[in-house]
Amino acid sequence: MSQAHPKQQNPAHADWQIEAGGAAASIAATSVERVPISIAYGDGIGPEIMTATLAILTAAGARLAPERIEIGEQVYLSGNTSGITNESWSSLRRTKIFLKAPVTTPSGGGYKSLNVTVRKTLGLYANVRPCISYAPFVDTLHPKMDIVIVRENEEDLYAGIEHRQTDEVFQCLKLITRPGCEKIVRHAFEYARSHGRRKVTCMVKDNIMKMTDGLFYSVYEEIGLEYPEIQKERYIIDIGAARIATQPERFDVIVTPNLYGDIISDVAAEMTGSIGLAGSANIGEHVAMFEAIHGSAPDIAGQNIANPSGLLLAAVMMLIHIRQAPIAERIHNAWLRTLEDGCHTADLKGERSTEVLGSAEFAQAVIARLGQEPRHFAAVRYLNPAEKTGPAKPLYTRRAPARKEMIGVDVFVHSPDNSPDFLAGRLTTLSTPTLKLQMITNRGVKVWPNGFPETFCTDHWRCRFVAAPGASIQHSDIIALLARVTEGHVDVIKTENLCTFDGENGFALGQGQ
Amino acid sequence: MSQAHPKQQNPAHADWQIEAGGAAASIAATSVERVPISIAYGDGIGPEIMTATLAILTAAGARLAPERIEIGEQVYLSGNTSGITNESWSSLRRTKIFLKAPVTTPSGGGYKSLNVTVRKTLGLYANVRPCISYAPFVDTLHPKMDIVIVRENEEDLYAGIEHRQTDEVFQCLKLITRPGCEKIVRHAFEYARSHGRRKVTCMVKDNIMKMTDGLFYSVYEEIGLEYPEIQKERYIIDIGAARIATQPERFDVIVTPNLYGDIISDVAAEMTGSIGLAGSANIGEHVAMFEAIHGSAPDIAGQNIANPSGLLLAAVMMLIHIRQAPIAERIHNAWLRTLEDGCHTADLKGERSTEVLGSAEFAQAVIARLGQEPRHFAAVRYLNPAEKTGPAKPLYTRRAPARKEMIGVDVFVHSPDNSPDFLAGRLTTLSTPTLKLQMITNRGVKVWPNGFPETFCTDHWRCRFVAAPGASIQHSDIIALLARVTEGHVDVIKTENLCTFDGENGFALGQGQ
Repeated sequence: MSQAHPKQQNPAHADWQIEAGGAAASIAATSVERVPISIAYGDGIGPEIMTATLAILTAAGARLAPERIEIGEQVYLSGNTSGITNESWSSLRRTKIFLKAPVTTPSGGGYKSLNVTVRKTLGLYANVRPCISYAPFVDTLHPKMDIVIVRENEEDLYAGIEHRQTDEVFQCLKLITRPGCEKIVRHAFEYARSHGRRKVTCMVKDNIMKMTDGLFYSVYEEIGLEYPEIQKERYIIDIGAARIATQPERFDVIVTPNLYGDIISDVAAEMTGSIGLAGSANIGEHVAMFEAIHGSAPDIAGQNIANPSGLLLAAVMMLIHIRQAPIAERIHNAWLRTLEDGCHTADLKGERSTEVLGSAEFAQAVIARLGQEPRHFAAVRYLNPAEKTGPAKPLYTRRAPARKEMIGVDVFVHSPDNSPDFLAGRLTTLSTPTLKLQMITNRGVKVWPNGFPETFCTDHWRCRFVAAPGASIQHSDIIALLARVTEGHVDVIKTENLCTFDGENGFALGQGQ
Repeated sequence: MSQAHPKQQNPAHADWQIEAGGAAASIAATSVERVPISIAYGDGIGPEIMTATLAILTAAGARLAPERIEIGEQVYLSGNTSGITNESWSSLRRTKIFLKAPVTTPSGGGYKSLNVTVRKTLGLYANVRPCISYAPFVDTLHPKMDIVIVRENEEDLYAGIEHRQTDEVFQCLKLITRPGCEKIVRHAFEYARSHGRRKVTCMVKDNIMKMTDGLFYSVYEEIGLEYPEIQKERYIIDIGAARIATQPERFDVIVTPNLYGDIISDVAAEMTGSIGLAGSANIGEHVAMFEAIHGSAPDIAGQNIANPSGLLLAAVMMLIHIRQAPIAERIHNAWLRTLEDGCHTADLKGERSTEVLGSAEFAQAVIARLGQEPRHFAAVRYLNPAEKTGPAKPLYTRRAPARKEMIGVDVFVHSPDNSPDFLAGRLTTLSTPTLKLQMITNRGVKVWPNGFPETFCTDHWRCRFVAAPGASIQHSDIIALLARVTEGHVDVIKTENLCTFDGENGFALGQGQ
């Protein structure tokens, strides 16, 4: 009878529950103290769905001590460009748990994304987004989707480090770090293990970005060894995204860097048929934030018609995080039953609807079903995460430094002159005793020596200077080179040192080199 | 009756044909000389599908003088890491037209992607990929797809410029250039105009990458003004990809940077139900390459079961490019009719199949239908592109240089010490009379001054030094700073100059700045 059933609901999970100590033990271990959390009512439909969600949390017996904080539109408009007050920061840093309704960023320049600011400032490294189909109650072409996307949340191109370097060329830095990769990959495997998931798929583009995405994948392989019961799988992101779009039932947990995760988590969420039902967690070492994935929908605000389900399911994730899994389970099952019973908000109105309810009435419908379980879907079963001793291994490991030697430098030059040979001639005469010109690339393609006249050249040249084979250089050698080049009236725009780490080259070759 | 019908087949196109001079005039203008092209039989199923394709081209009266060139597996294995011989390069540079069967890149390190090498060396800036559903003859959940993705093909993260900078941090450069954007955007609009398409959608992530993706979008807006009859539309790539995955019928032509295009073109192709039917063009200023989007499928090679349709439809694009549109039209319509008649290769075997044919027999089935038109689908109508006077405006414009002033420098530092305040203290004492420390970020987040202890820090610090407000600096000021910092035993890994262009900042602020 059941079509869509989150994998944590499978009967096979009984094994896992026993391994983890059993549900009873878990419930017994739960604290009865009220847990302080920061809550923000947000903008647009935010207040309505927060009110509805809190009503359900309270009725279900969640032990919470909410602190209301101010963020969003009014804070922005008061002249605070980050949209969050100092008092709100203090609350977040004190409670470490944030249940957040959607906010509106005013249009016009200068206002920064509150989400990006909160994520990065508080180190919320993992964005966890379950994308689950609820057919036949929610229309979708993909009735068997049950994917959890674990997206790296702090680094990659989202570091926001951009420079205009020449008249023609703009640059953004993509940064991928070993601790960043370790944290997200370990989080994905821990999530899979604690939620009884079977497989963690890694999606990268390491055939092209061999160093950055290569690092992500090698960390995935390395940490994956510690989770022998979890199936591993790798996709190049383009093919992986295509498979998600056509055969989402093939996937379980997916772990991926920030940009790819941004794209595929929107793809997967929309494929479920409604982005109004999805919650997400942003997990950090210190703080965690829980929110719906949809926006503040100002066009329908204040009408009591918004669907509170996204925020409610985010709150369910929060309850598990703060070790109130039995309450989370109670709410989630009542919500599934409400959906099955055809008690729908206007966005889900359809053949299966028996009643079309307002936000507040929908909350009452869920409350009325607390203690009931779904009949079409399998019931969810949640366990509290392990006590805060952390995972078996630390989230990341700081390593002893590698033996690093500098062996050259890429000097980037702004030159509107379109001839690589002419530039090479000038730079060759400007070489120093320790650093000689080895090659010039334009947008990564080698144009000197032995370039092709068909290669299109911008005004942005990467000029690689290297020491003699086997020799290493000092910072002073690079400074001497820069001084020579500058005397020669060459317009340097940036440098990238070339280093070896434990004897291995820390740089890619030029295309065509 | 017709369900899927490429937009160039709509009756409304009659107007456009008349505007362009009418099909008859176009045919009359066609040269009768044979056009030299380079062809590569490739690896795996390559030879079979090339043979089938050439048979159809010949039977249809295509005026071609093919030169066979060697590329791929055997060339790689002979020790040539780029997989293409010098003789092949010469042929490509002479004929300027390349019809290419899929190749196999041997596994094991050191072999470079032939496609990337050819694209970048020959400046093939535009990847054009039609993604069309052929329901009910090909199963798909999206029977009304008819999208053409125009993907920038040379720059973005695919420049392959990667550096390991510290023990923990790896970097890849994303480069977006004004001429690169102008070329691809103009190509997309010209394609839309010459194929009777109604809309060009731009997909970027300029809410995050305001400078690089911002440039792409501003060029799109600027050039779009010259095409008033074409509808414009912008999507943030994550939401855009989600819409493609759920409502592909909303889109017509899509133009997007390299990485996004890589992802969405695979998504769209797979959603059509078969990647075996799609051809693609890689267009440069000098040379153009045409190929199937699928790979060499060595597992089914030599069995005469491969579907030659992808390469055939690539050849159709080639024929239009070389101004043999009437032949292209004749082949494409015969191919559609073959599909409708149920003459299918094994990959398409299904309810609608009347015969399951081998590669060679499928070619004969198409040949037998030359001169016929489809009955279910609308017939395609192709016109030769305008004579080689080029589009109304040049593909890109080199501009007068902006007034560029240096006002500071971002110095990136490798320091395993986890304290931004300590680093700031050291760097402050190392500042020079012209350049003072303004801020430090870690992975883009401001950590000094006034950082938060929760911010996770790697060993990679971006230290922004700026001149006094209104003052500008010289290269020698940066060199003096680097000398001071080096004397202070700070390990500099790279620099990025901070410039203004015509008074506008050419750099982004730090997150939290």
